[in-house]
Amino acid sequence: MPQHEREENGYDPKDDRNVNHDNGKLKELGELSVERLFENQEVPSWRKQLTVRAFVVSFVVSILFSFIVMKLNLTTGIIPSLNVSAGLLGFFFVKTWTKLLRKSGLLKQPFTRQENTVIQTCVVASSGIAFSGGFGSYLFGMSKRIAKQSTNTHDFKNPSLVWIIGFLFVVSFLGLFSVVPLRKIMVIDFRLTYPSGTATAYLINSFHTPQGAKLAKKQVRELGKFFTFSFLWSFFQWFYTAGDHCGFASFPSLGLKAYKYKFYFDFSATYVGVGMICPYIINISVLVGGILSWGLMWPLIEKRKGDWYSTDLPETSLHGLQGYKVFISIAMILGDGLYNFVKVLSLTIIGLSHQFRQKDVSSDLPTAGHSSDHVSSQVSYDDKRRTQLFLKDQIPAWFSIGGYVAIAAISTATLPHIFHQLKWYYILVMYIFAPILAFCNAYGNGLTDWSLASTYGKLAIFIIGAWAGASHGGVLAGLAACGVMMNIVSTASDLMQDFKTGYLTLASPRSMFVSQLIGTAMGCIISPCVFWLFYKAFDDIGLPESQYPAPNAVVYRNMALLGVQGFSSLPRNCLLLCCVFFGAAILINFIRDLAGKKWQQFIPIPMAMAIPFYIGSYFAIDMCVGSLILFVWEKINRAKADAFGHAVASGLICGDGIWALPASILALAGIKPPICMNFLSRGANITVHNFSTPQG
Amino acid sequence: MPQHEREENGYDPKDDRNVNHDNGKLKELGELSVERLFENQEVPSWRKQLTVRAFVVSFVVSILFSFIVMKLNLTTGIIPSLNVSAGLLGFFFVKTWTKLLRKSGLLKQPFTRQENTVIQTCVVASSGIAFSGGFGSYLFGMSKRIAKQSTNTHDFKNPSLVWIIGFLFVVSFLGLFSVVPLRKIMVIDFRLTYPSGTATAYLINSFHTPQGAKLAKKQVRELGKFFTFSFLWSFFQWFYTAGDHCGFASFPSLGLKAYKYKFYFDFSATYVGVGMICPYIINISVLVGGILSWGLMWPLIEKRKGDWYSTDLPETSLHGLQGYKVFISIAMILGDGLYNFVKVLSLTIIGLSHQFRQKDVSSDLPTAGHSSDHVSSQVSYDDKRRTQLFLKDQIPAWFSIGGYVAIAAISTATLPHIFHQLKWYYILVMYIFAPILAFCNAYGNGLTDWSLASTYGKLAIFIIGAWAGASHGGVLAGLAACGVMMNIVSTASDLMQDFKTGYLTLASPRSMFVSQLIGTAMGCIISPCVFWLFYKAFDDIGLPESQYPAPNAVVYRNMALLGVQGFSSLPRNCLLLCCVFFGAAILINFIRDLAGKKWQQFIPIPMAMAIPFYIGSYFAIDMCVGSLILFVWEKINRAKADAFGHAVASGLICGDGIWALPASILALAGIKPPICMNFLSRGANITVHNFSTPQG
Repeated sequence: MPQHEREENGYDPKDDRNVNHDNGKLKELGELSVERLFENQEVPSWRKQLTVRAFVVSFVVSILFSFIVMKLNLTTGIIPSLNVSAGLLGFFFVKTWTKLLRKSGLLKQPFTRQENTVIQTCVVASSGIAFSGGFGSYLFGMSKRIAKQSTNTHDFKNPSLVWIIGFLFVVSFLGLFSVVPLRKIMVIDFRLTYPSGTATAYLINSFHTPQGAKLAKKQVRELGKFFTFSFLWSFFQWFYTAGDHCGFASFPSLGLKAYKYKFYFDFSATYVGVGMICPYIINISVLVGGILSWGLMWPLIEKRKGDWYSTDLPETSLHGLQGYKVFISIAMILGDGLYNFVKVLSLTIIGLSHQFRQKDVSSDLPTAGHSSDHVSSQVSYDDKRRTQLFLKDQIPAWFSIGGYVAIAAISTATLPHIFHQLKWYYILVMYIFAPILAFCNAYGNGLTDWSLASTYGKLAIFIIGAWAGASHGGVLAGLAACGVMMNIVSTASDLMQDFKTGYLTLASPRSMFVSQLIGTAMGCIISPCVFWLFYKAFDDIGLPESQYPAPNAVVYRNMALLGVQGFSSLPRNCLLLCCVFFGAAILINFIRDLAGKKWQQFIPIPMAMAIPFYIGSYFAIDMCVGSLILFVWEKINRAKADAFGHAVASGLICGDGIWALPASILALAGIKPPICMNFLSRGANITVHNFSTPQG
Repeated sequence: MPQHEREENGYDPKDDRNVNHDNGKLKELGELSVERLFENQEVPSWRKQLTVRAFVVSFVVSILFSFIVMKLNLTTGIIPSLNVSAGLLGFFFVKTWTKLLRKSGLLKQPFTRQENTVIQTCVVASSGIAFSGGFGSYLFGMSKRIAKQSTNTHDFKNPSLVWIIGFLFVVSFLGLFSVVPLRKIMVIDFRLTYPSGTATAYLINSFHTPQGAKLAKKQVRELGKFFTFSFLWSFFQWFYTAGDHCGFASFPSLGLKAYKYKFYFDFSATYVGVGMICPYIINISVLVGGILSWGLMWPLIEKRKGDWYSTDLPETSLHGLQGYKVFISIAMILGDGLYNFVKVLSLTIIGLSHQFRQKDVSSDLPTAGHSSDHVSSQVSYDDKRRTQLFLKDQIPAWFSIGGYVAIAAISTATLPHIFHQLKWYYILVMYIFAPILAFCNAYGNGLTDWSLASTYGKLAIFIIGAWAGASHGGVLAGLAACGVMMNIVSTASDLMQDFKTGYLTLASPRSMFVSQLIGTAMGCIISPCVFWLFYKAFDDIGLPESQYPAPNAVVYRNMALLGVQGFSSLPRNCLLLCCVFFGAAILINFIRDLAGKKWQQFIPIPMAMAIPFYIGSYFAIDMCVGSLILFVWEKINRAKADAFGHAVASGLICGDGIWALPASILALAGIKPPICMNFLSRGANITVHNFSTPQG
């Protein structure tokens, strides 16, 4: 899963237990020299790494993951790292495949870790598009349905399968070509860590040792068990959802009053799983944010109704309570984003200047042996072998530069036809600066495991939006520019992560690049189709009370509005509150960085706190339940929880996620659930019963 | 828990895995000589066995168990054996008590197995009254509410705390005095097995060995865990039960159509626990009965509406569908009862004649060494020591005979004042025959673990009812006579079980007798009070659609009606169907007995099949879920399931059962649950929503 998604959660990679855990393995294996273990295994040529079966498996897993990511996009926008599940599922499918073939005597090529890396890369690239395509944010924010909920209702562009696919194809490949020439500098010379890429590589390496394969098999079994459970549970829930506010998702488990303020457990296996994967502090932050907003601020602001804002506004009006919800959360997201942008950028600059001061860029040294401060002067066997193979297959610079220019030209020519508000010169300017931003993002990501893709996207919203101006459709121009920018920088950092993974698993850079190209192409087709299925099947997507409120769509559109129109549209005292929360977000981040590691884990993360501001804290309760389960499990049996926690969580997420497929097919076929489980207060119940006796 | 309750379930003791399981232990321990293990432990005198703490603990556990038994009485009438939980809880309380005292240095007397047996006896006697008091059957069957549901509505006697306590006090002690003189014959000379009594004794013995105490501690912890879970779950459920057909108990988990025919999982922890304790075949029988009746017969009979019975009858009328439900289940219960009555009676006669033919009644031989065919001529150390201690404390014959005559006289004088329809000469006749029946029941119980108390009660209904005749209130006279008879025979067999337990744990017969007396007295106070709490708190007890339908109350009253009025009141073809099912019950039992042990476990038990005929199969589904859990658990870890299955089940039953106390207090205090979770079909839901939007 691409790292930019993490940035949406805004969590610090130092908190990421998964990475630390896998790094623990890494050290252990590192001492034993991983490559010595694989010494006898021949590394296939880059063409042989790209097998047909790898892409078939990638295609299947990509569809699964696109459903999951799309569901997450449209419900809360929180997307956990699904790397481990991708690795596990890829391994499981190919292993089953090769086993079957071996039994039938048809196996020609054994399953290698290089092939596994190819699958991983392809799946990550493909399902990454489901995020960077903006189906839950900028792209859907252009639609009429979201526009209706904002103050600018005339600038809209409804989604349609054709233009979305076209748009994705012309913008998604630029990022790849922009950073390809830098792979050696980033991976070998700078020795950037890319924690997630490294973790994935060690996972894949471990799968292909006999002991690791045994554990992986057990993990797959666990994943399968919880996948089945989660799928069946979603299926069971479905029967009780005839009508609005029906079913388990509306279960007022903490009472009706709490339900009214969105505090309830909504029985979503997905978010319980997400809670198990996310670090504790993320879950706590989300809950704290929910309590602060829905438990404290909104009820207090509601009391000012008639004073701060008019009483006769519809509930969705941004001039009323809804305005406070949307703009305060935007303020927090922007505050957090700004802080981290400045932080990562300065780290990048410091890091770069350090690199250049210490040594000449040793691009002409073909083997290891240079004296970077990142590397001990004594180069290990592993490093030697990896560097040798990484440099074997070259991608010529003319190819990548030519590719970039060609695609940029096509893109500049076609994009204004899709979005009339996006002039060709906006695009040209973006494409001139894009490679620099892509490099920054790839470098920052390598240092901190933190992709700022959506922050760059927000930057584009404000700059291009202001440039175009309100009267020339600046809202749509801004959102489209956001898309262009996000796609470039996120695919760039993804590719560099994959190069790192490839370096550590001896997969060729060429096969990585091709795999990423094919994966991106798959994603440009699969993601819009999956979105289209959701969009057609559930006709209330994007409405605040719906099962799929798509909170980020509203947030992105209103950011664009802010950029274009200024603060004029905010209700009373809202600007003040926004400033307070903007400042608080920066301050909290600053305190987090100052505090030692010991205290850091108790300070909430502003970006995570902002999410429930708009949609409520029901998913926060799910996530905390997930945390609690993991916590208790760790107390009871630490070793087992570490080995299987991720597999269980992935099973829960995948099962519930894939249920979205049959659910939307049922909805499209017009088959409606038969029963409504609803919850009435005692008084209301008596009224209803006097009116009708519906049982039996 | 007294064995007569088992007879309500109609299950064959050979199926009772618990007994078998404990017998397994028994054999193992037997080879090691149990009494050698306890050789160094002094046996306290009978007065010292009767400690104050034992009765305080008994009182607490009795209240707990009275709630559980009462709840079971009023929901389905199926009462599993709670011996193990009684043993565990008694052990747990006294052990905690003595531990605390030892720490504070105040412990004067250690906790002995004799004291444990005293507690067990007292609790069994006390909570036995909650069953034999007929609160779910004959006694409640007298009330106006049940009378209204039958064809005879003028003969009724509403429950009231005063007369119930009075009635129980004058009839409950007779059984004890009637069989006391026979204890030596039954326990030592005949060496009757009393499987449940033996199992309990071995359980208690095992608790007091170091290894056993360790296991018991673990079991108590498991019980406590599931007790808490089950209690909290019931508490949680409560919040959603504002109004009829609200809450988890009305969850149409198999769809609305199945719900209409009472096929659904009602989330009752009690019946899941009951399902785990009852043998598989009981659970299957109940389910088969439910499918046969609610799945097949009632829908078919419903189609004949207007032909077989009038269309304009109220739903509860016995001339309509309700009549088929009640009378067909009565027919099955009577068929099964008759078969087993004849079977146990003939076994008794054969057994007795065998005993007398083989040897003189060796009542004057003080020590072992006689040559019964049940005993090897070589008498073990255990037998010697047990017999010696059993014969040490005598209860003089004049005392028991005098006691019986005195209580019979008081009873004969007072009962007609409570029930005007019950003439003194009916009572006198009953009391002349009662000791014989009490002996028969105690003997049969010793042989087969099967108490026929309620069958003797039904016999009394028919004989006394017919003698009194319809015009002289025969219905009430019959029901009252049933109560008199049931109390005598059930306490008699209980006492003899306890003597056996005492024999095996070296507890004195005197302390057993006193403990049983005190326990019975407790029961005569506690049970009516608990019933009164239910009766006052839930004002729909006894109505067919209520949470507490008290199915046996309706069944018993209609038996009395049948006895008095004959078959005139039955709807069309009902008599034919009754005869078919009566015959089928006898036939199935006969086949069960003919079939080998291998096939027996696949043949359902008619008595168990009859229960859902009236109330539906929701509890059958709960019980099957319990069975399934146990089955899977046994597959995964047989040893653990055997060791803790009973503790888990007891925890589930006790937690849910004790919730009835706060639930009824809340109901009495007028505190109603806040939310109604209900289930509407899609169509009905739309109608309701057009009428009101109750959420929020």
